[in-house]
Amino acid sequence: MAVKWPEGARSGARACGIKDEGPDLGIIVLDRACAWAGTFTRNAAAAAPVEWSRSLLGRPVRGLVVNSGNANACTGAAGDEAVATTAQALATELGCDRDQILVASTGPIGVRLPVDKIAAAVPATVSGLDRDVEGFARAILTTDTTTKVSSRRAGDASVVGVAKGAAMLAPNMATMLAFIVTDAQVDPPTLQKILDAAVDRSFNRISVDSCESTNDSVFAFATGIRPSGELGALADALDYVCGELAHSMVADAEGGSKVVRVVVEGAFNDRIAIELGRAVAASTLWRAAVFGGDPNWGRIAAALGSASPDLELSELSISIGNTPVFVRGEPAGDLEAARAAMDAGEFTVGCIVGAGPGSTTILTSDLSPDYVTLNATGTT
Amino acid sequence: MAVKWPEGARSGARACGIKDEGPDLGIIVLDRACAWAGTFTRNAAAAAPVEWSRSLLGRPVRGLVVNSGNANACTGAAGDEAVATTAQALATELGCDRDQILVASTGPIGVRLPVDKIAAAVPATVSGLDRDVEGFARAILTTDTTTKVSSRRAGDASVVGVAKGAAMLAPNMATMLAFIVTDAQVDPPTLQKILDAAVDRSFNRISVDSCESTNDSVFAFATGIRPSGELGALADALDYVCGELAHSMVADAEGGSKVVRVVVEGAFNDRIAIELGRAVAASTLWRAAVFGGDPNWGRIAAALGSASPDLELSELSISIGNTPVFVRGEPAGDLEAARAAMDAGEFTVGCIVGAGPGSTTILTSDLSPDYVTLNATGTT
Repeated sequence: MAVKWPEGARSGARACGIKDEGPDLGIIVLDRACAWAGTFTRNAAAAAPVEWSRSLLGRPVRGLVVNSGNANACTGAAGDEAVATTAQALATELGCDRDQILVASTGPIGVRLPVDKIAAAVPATVSGLDRDVEGFARAILTTDTTTKVSSRRAGDASVVGVAKGAAMLAPNMATMLAFIVTDAQVDPPTLQKILDAAVDRSFNRISVDSCESTNDSVFAFATGIRPSGELGALADALDYVCGELAHSMVADAEGGSKVVRVVVEGAFNDRIAIELGRAVAASTLWRAAVFGGDPNWGRIAAALGSASPDLELSELSISIGNTPVFVRGEPAGDLEAARAAMDAGEFTVGCIVGAGPGSTTILTSDLSPDYVTLNATGTT
Repeated sequence: MAVKWPEGARSGARACGIKDEGPDLGIIVLDRACAWAGTFTRNAAAAAPVEWSRSLLGRPVRGLVVNSGNANACTGAAGDEAVATTAQALATELGCDRDQILVASTGPIGVRLPVDKIAAAVPATVSGLDRDVEGFARAILTTDTTTKVSSRRAGDASVVGVAKGAAMLAPNMATMLAFIVTDAQVDPPTLQKILDAAVDRSFNRISVDSCESTNDSVFAFATGIRPSGELGALADALDYVCGELAHSMVADAEGGSKVVRVVVEGAFNDRIAIELGRAVAASTLWRAAVFGGDPNWGRIAAALGSASPDLELSELSISIGNTPVFVRGEPAGDLEAARAAMDAGEFTVGCIVGAGPGSTTILTSDLSPDYVTLNATGTT
């Protein structure tokens, strides 16, 4: 059954001509000004739409315009003007202030945004708004091969999320956009708090190429139509939706064919576990071995050792699938079984690094020649 | 003219059967116990030979045994025993203590070293020692396609260096080994000091895949036969030799076809300049664009912004070759000229990040599908 936005939210999509073909413009409209929360890239070269939307945190909003095919990043003063023009175009249709409109963009960096095409397409897009999610989900894709949608009940309310992202996926968010709507009634600070926690456990625990984007944004809207009920249920639903969207992004990683779950346990604390997991997920050598189906666990050990000066080899154990390949400082086990585990579309790398309480799971993909080919051209 | 070791040093090489074919064992012998200095990987998963050699710092040595085809890393207690056995084999031939023998290894991680093959081949290798450098340089190669040798006069003395390394090249040294010999007379602390400075300006300023190896080692020996003369000349010669070897490694990067000089200027200090330069050199997205000859400067801006929260886009300018592509926060220039500059075998990326005094140059290469293919298999 096709996923519908929760009550109080509608969306529309259109091909406005930024991309050579396919839909590239999406709009979300909230029936009335509503609470929202956001998490944005920490990249100092943040795109113009990120700066715009971030500045509106804490104020109720009526809608959002997102385009794919152009990041509107590193575009100077013209980029800032383009964002204001975009917001104004939707504000005019809704009869609200442009400061009630959020903006997001994704695509190549440093190319001037053809904002006239967006402005021209807004009225027709608004006139076709409905609660269908799929069309909007398609309009935000760039190199993604599939739409990414997740939904979950939270008591009487529901949570629906849509995301895009297939590369430049790194710690501290990815080249990713996510749009989450709930019809629960929740105040902005609480919504921000549960969003931050959910993002930290999902989008911040995936890594494709360790490249942090200029445009990363996660938006969560609460239309406030249903009582929120128990807050824990809403937080759990948001966790679920963010987690499923994050997994979808890694599964759709550019050129990737596998999802690798890097599980780190026994670290001094969670922060160090996350650093170690990210180091494994960032190792191009290990990720190339994953592509080849080669259980080259030495590259896992090298990545861990490079990330942590405190690592003791005699306390380190590594497994691939269910096969121990390195146990407390000694090579061990059956590499053929490890190789077989790597044949699966998804497999786990287990790293026990000591006896501490810190643990994490980081998702990554393999590095393939196709990733390079996909990213070798395209700017000019 | 074939390069010869400085007086007081001889070497030998042999195929002892660690690799399927080709030379894989090299020995350097100093005519008398001599001063040496070393710089080693900071990887906590340092290989057994690294631990052995590092422990001998400050004591005069008579020789060194190096093998390629096996890193003897993550090999547990058997790895430690293999190093001691290797050192003893050469010590027996030279009639010295095994604590006067350094050991180095390079190759796959986590595979038990066939130390019997090394021990058996040592006597014949020692009986064939001479001052020829090329044979030794060939014996230490792994995925390298060329030998890497550099030499420079320093007054009456000379400096000769040999290196290997073509991937896992990262900040804080690379999967690299380098062996440098001078016949100058210089005390160990001074030799260590000028070696550290030279390594910092050469091997620590290259990056191929941001993977830090378990086996990185740079050894410098001073046979003490010639008066050192002015110390500055010796330091300059060491700088030159290390710089040339580092450049050779990037030029021979696995699957790479280009050398990219990332020049950062205007940073708050040199340390931050180095961080920024390394971030550009570590961007798989930018390095894929280099492979494709695509002047995708937005990926340079994104890498810089990701590395530095203090970066101000309005103070950032980027050039490719001699073409400005982004000037103080605004896209600029002729991308076709930038594209043409990228056709050269070596080109410069200039990043002016502010008005500070910090600057650096980091060398890197492109990321190609061949890099992935080369690293996709091979362990088992």
